[in-house]
Amino acid sequence: MVHDHTCVIGAGISGLAVAGTLRSRNLPVTVLERSDGVGGLWRYPDPPVPGPAYRSLHLNTSARLTGYGDFPMPADFPRYPRHDQVADYLRRYADHKGVTGHVELGAEVESLVREDDGTWLVTTRHHDGARRRRRFGHVVVASGHHWSPRLPSLPGDETFPGRRTHSFDYSDPATHAGRKVVVIGFGNSAADLAVELSRVAEKTVLVQRRGVHVVPKTMLGIPIDEIASAPWWARMTFPEQRRLIEALLRIMRGRLTDYGLAEPDHRIFGGPLTISDELLSRINHGALEVRPAIDRIVNSTLHFVDGSTTEADDLVYCTGYRIEFPFLPFEWVFEPGGQVALYQRVVSLTAPDLYFAGLIRPFGAITRLVEAQAEWIADLVEGVAELPPARAMRREVDAHLAAAKARYGPTAADSVQVDFAAYLAALRRQRRSSVLTTRRG
Amino acid sequence: MVHDHTCVIGAGISGLAVAGTLRSRNLPVTVLERSDGVGGLWRYPDPPVPGPAYRSLHLNTSARLTGYGDFPMPADFPRYPRHDQVADYLRRYADHKGVTGHVELGAEVESLVREDDGTWLVTTRHHDGARRRRRFGHVVVASGHHWSPRLPSLPGDETFPGRRTHSFDYSDPATHAGRKVVVIGFGNSAADLAVELSRVAEKTVLVQRRGVHVVPKTMLGIPIDEIASAPWWARMTFPEQRRLIEALLRIMRGRLTDYGLAEPDHRIFGGPLTISDELLSRINHGALEVRPAIDRIVNSTLHFVDGSTTEADDLVYCTGYRIEFPFLPFEWVFEPGGQVALYQRVVSLTAPDLYFAGLIRPFGAITRLVEAQAEWIADLVEGVAELPPARAMRREVDAHLAAAKARYGPTAADSVQVDFAAYLAALRRQRRSSVLTTRRG
Repeated sequence: MVHDHTCVIGAGISGLAVAGTLRSRNLPVTVLERSDGVGGLWRYPDPPVPGPAYRSLHLNTSARLTGYGDFPMPADFPRYPRHDQVADYLRRYADHKGVTGHVELGAEVESLVREDDGTWLVTTRHHDGARRRRRFGHVVVASGHHWSPRLPSLPGDETFPGRRTHSFDYSDPATHAGRKVVVIGFGNSAADLAVELSRVAEKTVLVQRRGVHVVPKTMLGIPIDEIASAPWWARMTFPEQRRLIEALLRIMRGRLTDYGLAEPDHRIFGGPLTISDELLSRINHGALEVRPAIDRIVNSTLHFVDGSTTEADDLVYCTGYRIEFPFLPFEWVFEPGGQVALYQRVVSLTAPDLYFAGLIRPFGAITRLVEAQAEWIADLVEGVAELPPARAMRREVDAHLAAAKARYGPTAADSVQVDFAAYLAALRRQRRSSVLTTRRG
Repeated sequence: MVHDHTCVIGAGISGLAVAGTLRSRNLPVTVLERSDGVGGLWRYPDPPVPGPAYRSLHLNTSARLTGYGDFPMPADFPRYPRHDQVADYLRRYADHKGVTGHVELGAEVESLVREDDGTWLVTTRHHDGARRRRRFGHVVVASGHHWSPRLPSLPGDETFPGRRTHSFDYSDPATHAGRKVVVIGFGNSAADLAVELSRVAEKTVLVQRRGVHVVPKTMLGIPIDEIASAPWWARMTFPEQRRLIEALLRIMRGRLTDYGLAEPDHRIFGGPLTISDELLSRINHGALEVRPAIDRIVNSTLHFVDGSTTEADDLVYCTGYRIEFPFLPFEWVFEPGGQVALYQRVVSLTAPDLYFAGLIRPFGAITRLVEAQAEWIADLVEGVAELPPARAMRREVDAHLAAAKARYGPTAADSVQVDFAAYLAALRRQRRSSVLTTRRG
């Protein structure tokens, strides 16, 4: 029956969690995946196709916490598995949960329309060019937020004669061997790519527009995502957590200015982190130069705001991704200013039975959080939980966005940032309060 | 006059320090260097010739402390310069000190004979095959201890069909691309090579025979050699120093067993350290496997003492170097058990005006220590200082070797280990006490 059937858009780590949870409850599900396989951003076909993964990509979070709770990653996996290990694991999870048979590959969702009877009309385009329309009772969007490259325009970039590559199109440093490469950006991908480019390029320059806290993958010998999800961590107040991490970082790496990096204008957890075990060491070894923002580009010469210049053969943009859902109206997800506005980061305010999974950026691993989202979504799909009134949902979103703004400033992207323990607790409270004592229907 | 003329054997960092000091005092010096250039182990010709350097080699100690006190490394050098930067710097130091014109390249010392008149007869063989004999008033041996590879024989290694390379003959990981490589050893070279091999090899296994403390290059944002030479460090007692470093390491890396490594059977500073910024992270990423000692080799299969096995295409021996001086009698330098037995690590007991520079392995950078050795050697050469009686020198050596044995166990190699601050203080005390109030001659 169409009213029971749930459509999950995307077969990455989040979509699989939702589909697996629905399957565990014997709820009918179809997963629409536009690529040729499951695994989302962890899929890295050989030969590679454009995508957020690259040959050297590893988990930044630990195997223990990134694996699903009811299907742990194999014991012989390293702490931080490589992309192909993760992809293989996700395929096995899909098999294990009986999801694989319900995944439709090569099916790109073109549009999502809410019908008068409360069902969803989903239009897909398939690899053979065919279109297909079908109805579902529920839709869960898990299409990810690492597929629409953000490519800022820089003054004079039209005069640049060299190669310009976004990290989305980057796969291997070998294509930059012996060249002068400028990496633009300072997030996780920028750090990974600059580090590996520095081993083959003639020269590697990293452009850091503003100060960002650089954090190693482990502290005290513990993966930082395991710290972020530890009971002792959750018992600490936020100021205590911040002081502890600041003290540990001071011991582990000193001040960022010791490395010629800009000191962040915010304390730790006041903005995104850059996670890298190797970046600071490479700077110490002279393998990488760090420069401030680009003022203008004049042919192959980059002029920086401090007045310095460098010659570049290649620009590698690690400037991140836009959060986009081209198959549905902007206002179903976003505030006018671009902030993601979902009740509990899951439920659309304007299309209240449209759910989003994994549209969060935790300090820590995403999996446990997505699993909690999936359980709650399954409750809602199954009808054993219900949503609060629209006004209460709006209030929760407003409070979340106000808190994000107070903490991170008015950056729209930070609306998806969540604290691991606090968010998990909120989802659990949500489930407890919203579960109906008797099943409906 | 031959009695005034000093022969320095070796134009590496130590030989140049001695020659530079002698030149500063206008004392005549000839530096005999068997290779084609100055720089010692930092020379890395292109194309490379066998030697302890490799393409990715960087200083493990900071530019600030590894540069000579009166000729600092350039301000634009990174904290840890690469081999070619160091070699270039050493060439410029030799020029700056007026040493370059007194260096004879391609001159390998074959023998050193003490003549009845107290002069030294030095026989050299030159690149063209010619031999030359000449007399010097003083000889300073600075020929280094990284040129005679130690290649342990392993049970069954004669059945191994693959390539066996000592780190002395290793230059670039590229020749091992796509192969199964086993790195034998766990010192600094083993860590460097295993890390870079792990990026290109099909599989990289690191054989760790016994637990060794792994230490990053910086702590608290400070290069560890700068910590070891800091006044606040020298003011701490040895137990305090050890407790501090143990606490910092616990914070920075947890326990070594967290990485599958053997826990050392000694506390830190109770044996050599392995310095690496990347080794533990590579293990966390599954890029490197660590195994215990090899029990036997059967064709291409290595059997380890824990019963496990691995297949290998290539063995890379990072098993260190023998301390050897083929041009002089063993007993001029060594105890019968192989321990280096030099008064203040500088003066032969049996050929008392034969000096050795740089035959030390400090926790920290060698340069300041070699400079202090050089000043004292220059005092002795110049005749403004004199040595204590033979019996007093013997007592000092015995005390040093007893302390080394108490601290490190009976390993002969540890007889060259010194603590930066303590050794520097000892050399300074030595100079103060031995300088004659009036100049002789």
